[in-house]
This record gives sequence, structure tokens and C-alpha cells, in this order.
Amino acid sequence: MEEIKIFSPATVANVACGFDVLGFCLDTIGDHMVVRKTLEKGIKITEIEGFDLPFEATENVAGVSALALIEDAKPNCGFEIEIYKNIKPGSGIGSSSASASGSVFAINELLGKPYNKTQLTYFAMQGEKMASQSEHADNLAPGIFGGFTLVKSINPLEILELPTPKDLYAVIVHPQIEIKTSEARAMLPNNVPLIDAIIQWANVGSFVHALHTSNYGLIQRSLQDIVIEPYRKRLIPHFSQVKSESMKAGALGCAISGSGPSMFALSHGLENAKKIELAMKKVYSNTQIDLETYVSKINTKGIKIL
Amino acid sequence: MEEIKIFSPATVANVACGFDVLGFCLDTIGDHMVVRKTLEKGIKITEIEGFDLPFEATENVAGVSALALIEDAKPNCGFEIEIYKNIKPGSGIGSSSASASGSVFAINELLGKPYNKTQLTYFAMQGEKMASQSEHADNLAPGIFGGFTLVKSINPLEILELPTPKDLYAVIVHPQIEIKTSEARAMLPNNVPLIDAIIQWANVGSFVHALHTSNYGLIQRSLQDIVIEPYRKRLIPHFSQVKSESMKAGALGCAISGSGPSMFALSHGLENAKKIELAMKKVYSNTQIDLETYVSKINTKGIKIL
Repeated sequence: MEEIKIFSPATVANVACGFDVLGFCLDTIGDHMVVRKTLEKGIKITEIEGFDLPFEATENVAGVSALALIEDAKPNCGFEIEIYKNIKPGSGIGSSSASASGSVFAINELLGKPYNKTQLTYFAMQGEKMASQSEHADNLAPGIFGGFTLVKSINPLEILELPTPKDLYAVIVHPQIEIKTSEARAMLPNNVPLIDAIIQWANVGSFVHALHTSNYGLIQRSLQDIVIEPYRKRLIPHFSQVKSESMKAGALGCAISGSGPSMFALSHGLENAKKIELAMKKVYSNTQIDLETYVSKINTKGIKIL
Repeated sequence: MEEIKIFSPATVANVACGFDVLGFCLDTIGDHMVVRKTLEKGIKITEIEGFDLPFEATENVAGVSALALIEDAKPNCGFEIEIYKNIKPGSGIGSSSASASGSVFAINELLGKPYNKTQLTYFAMQGEKMASQSEHADNLAPGIFGGFTLVKSINPLEILELPTPKDLYAVIVHPQIEIKTSEARAMLPNNVPLIDAIIQWANVGSFVHALHTSNYGLIQRSLQDIVIEPYRKRLIPHFSQVKSESMKAGALGCAISGSGPSMFALSHGLENAKKIELAMKKVYSNTQIDLETYVSKINTKGIKIL
């Protein structure tokens, strides 16, 4: 294989209770990438459409992760990368992750799959690190593994694939305002009350149990974030209203996606997801804020070859 | 049925990563209780063997929990309770819980099971509250439900029954020193670093996943407590050595049981559990500290009718 075309999906990190560790994969929004072998060694980005991003490989997350991989693999060829971005940078649904993981996924395929998914996540983290100034994998893992993932630890890197209940859908609302991941990180508390941390780890444990038992009621009762949301929700206009209207419309939970400004809701079934989407749109209908919304089944495959 | 005899087992709370929420049930150590209907209404404790505990129902945890139940049930009879205690009070393996849950379990049987297990836990919590000055269910739930449990929330009370991998054994070492639960609670930090809390909730999530997938390696990698153990381990002489020797002997993890002084280790298989027990004993062999050790399969039934 000399060339590959892939779909690298958007992802939701944190997932309410699981700050920095939980994530899941979307299906209806993502970037396309074409990667092909070249005689000349190294990584070249030859095309970027959709958004204005650097072509220099060392300054582009897809380039940095690809360079990390080839530094290890030392292949007898190089690669050129075309990026067709649909996920807006800074949207909070894993735009940089989709680029960082897409390039290494594609190159791994072209090389005959020498690396497993955890190793690919490790290379992709090198790209993410440049984008967010911190080492994390909670958007990368769901893109590469699909479904719900839990980043058990970064060092050593260990990713758990959690089961996905079959009627689970996500709704995303992306108000078009800018929040920098680094700013959202800076406003986090250094310390949290022990009593809140206990509630949070009870919720993480029960959320994992709920996924294993396809218990939608328990998913709903577990999707609480009392540690991070109180700080970050101020960054998102109308957050509380979006949340309360989503819940009224039947959401299993509604919280900030990654560091925002996107929010996600989970839904039991597609029909209900569409109602939630309408409820979210309605909150912003009398404001000046533009927005995008998406309804998606949870993508259990992750990145796909087209 | 006019009379019932039960075995009310010892339990391990906290389970390393799951402070205040996780617990599991033991099989080889526990109290016996006999409860019988009486014409006279109310609760009477007529026999206590093993340890010196109050006979007055309002001052005995088994009495207090039983009173909470009959206040709700309003039966046309009373109950007398005989308590044959094997679990030493203050040992850290749920001595008061075994009494508090045993009496309500037995009375519920004699009344024809009007209450479910969560309701029984609620009544038993009223007894526990007297013993530990705080409302918690992490020892009660595994005794009443059996196996591993997660107390998702106290208010409303919600308990999750987690699966138990079939070759899982526990080893308990109980150095005969006294630690008061209230003192052990008082030394806890009010706040914890966010980065530590994140590691802890990743571990709770991965431990629950490990139980669901019978993944013994992941059980081992999840049984870490970086939040509470650093404070409480000072209360237990030779804690670090017990832990390191248990791990060398093949333990899947070793941590403080409840608020101590008992410690527990988990083991894949009985043979290995016996090796761990020996290793634990050896640590104390050159000290003046008396100790008891127990090896037990995880008890998936909980309280049993004899």
C-alpha cells in the first residue's frame, strides 16, 4: 500500500466525572487525511484545507506525531500528508487529537502495522503535547481505540477499552466562541476537597460499571462533575441553561466537552438525541452566538480507513 | 420462623484506591448471631460473648440498627438478640458493621423479608453512625450484598454489586494494636492535590473494569492509594514492610483495611494467598506485637443463615 485515506473522528474528553481520564469517540464529525509514501525521507505536509494551520511538520501536531513515529520506526521512505479538517481548532472536541492520531494511524497502516494502538497513542501524544502544553491522551485514546476509553496512566501509558451500550448517542453543541486549552487548564484548582474527590471517584467507578451493565439509569446518575465544572462553566455562556434544558429533554447527562466551549449530552436512543439537540439550539436562538450541533452514535471503531 | 441463626462476616473497606466507597466481604471470619421473636415488643440483647460490649440496645450497634428497622416496620412482636463476636472491635475489618448488619438481616428474615438489601443497609447505617460518628456504608454493603460493592452515594443510598473474579482470595493481618476510627478519620486531609485525585479516580475506574473482566494484572495495577495511605500508614507499625513483603510474595495489592490496624492483600489463588500470609507473619516475628492472620476466599453471598 502506497497511499491511504482515513477518517479521523472528533472525540469527547473528560465525560463529566472522568476529568483527564475518560473519553469517547464520535462518528458524524471528523477530519479526512490522505497519507502517501514518498521516496524522500521525512514528513511533509502538502495540503491543509478547512482551517489555517502550519505546513511546517515540526509546527503541526500531525507532523510532530508523525515525526515521533518515524524517528522510532526508521522507515526507508518518507510520507506526505494531506489534511482536510472539519473539526474546528479550539472547539473542545479533539481537533488537534484527530490530526495527531490520524497521521500516525495512517503511517502505521502504510508500514504494515508494526505498532499497537497504545504505541500509536504514545506517538500521537507528542503532537498533542505541542498543542496543549501538557501530556494527555484522553482525546487521543477514544479516536485510536474507538468507543469509551479510560486512560489508566500516562507513565507507563495504559489505556482501557470500556464497553459501549448499543443505544448510546451523543449530542454536541459548539457555541462559536474561543477557549484556549491552556487557559482552561490554568483556571483549575490545585487542590480539591477530599469529600468532593470521593464523590467523583464513586462516580467514575459507577460510570464504568454502568457501561459494563448497559445501565442507562446509572449512566445518568454517574455523569456528574462536582470538581471541574464549577470552575470551567463560567467560560461558556448559557452553560447552565444548556445543561438544564438538555436534562429536561431526556439527556443522560450534559457537561463540558474537553475544556470547552463545546458541550456534550449522552442520550439513550437517536430519537431522544434529536430532541436534546433541539433543546440545546433553542437556548442560543435568542443570542448573537453562532453554533454548530451534531448528533452521533458512539463510534466504536475509532479512526476508519476510507 | 421464630428464631434464626446467622453468620455475619468481616469485611474490608476502602480497598486501596476506593476510600469511602469500595468494600469486599470475607468468609472465614465473622460473628454468629441468634435472633428470636418475643411477645414483648422492642429489642433486647440477651447474650454477648467474645468481647465486652454494652447490653443496652440503644448503646449497642446491633441494637441501634435493629431499633431503626422496627421503628419503620412496626411489627407486632419484639426481638431478642444473642451476639457471639469473633471480630475484635477496632480491628479494621468491620466489627461494628457485622453487628449492625447482622441484626437487621436476621430480623428481616423473621419478618418475611419486607426490606431489600439497600434498605437493610440504611437501617444498619444507623448503628454504624453511633460507632464511628460518621455515616458510611462501605463495610455494611459488602456484608449485606456479598462480594465487592461500591457505595455510589449515601444520600440517596445507592449500592452497586460488582462482579468477583472467581480465583480471588484475601489475606488479612491484624496486628493487635488499637486505632480508633474517629482518630484515623481526624488525621485525614481536608483537601487533596487535583493531580493525586485524578490518579485515584483513574484507579477506581480501572479496578471496576478489572473486576468485570477478571483481569488480575489490572487489579494489581489499580490497587494503589496515593491519597489516604500516606497519612494513615504511620498509625501501623511495619506497614511498609508488610506491604513490600506481600508484594514480593505475589500479592495483587496490599493496603490498610478500613482505618486499620488490619491490612489486607488480594491474591490470585489460594496457594499464593498462603505464601502472602507467611510473608506477613514473618515481618512481625521479631517484634513484640501479637497478631492474627486470616486467609479467605471473597465471600460472594455475604451474611449467611446457618
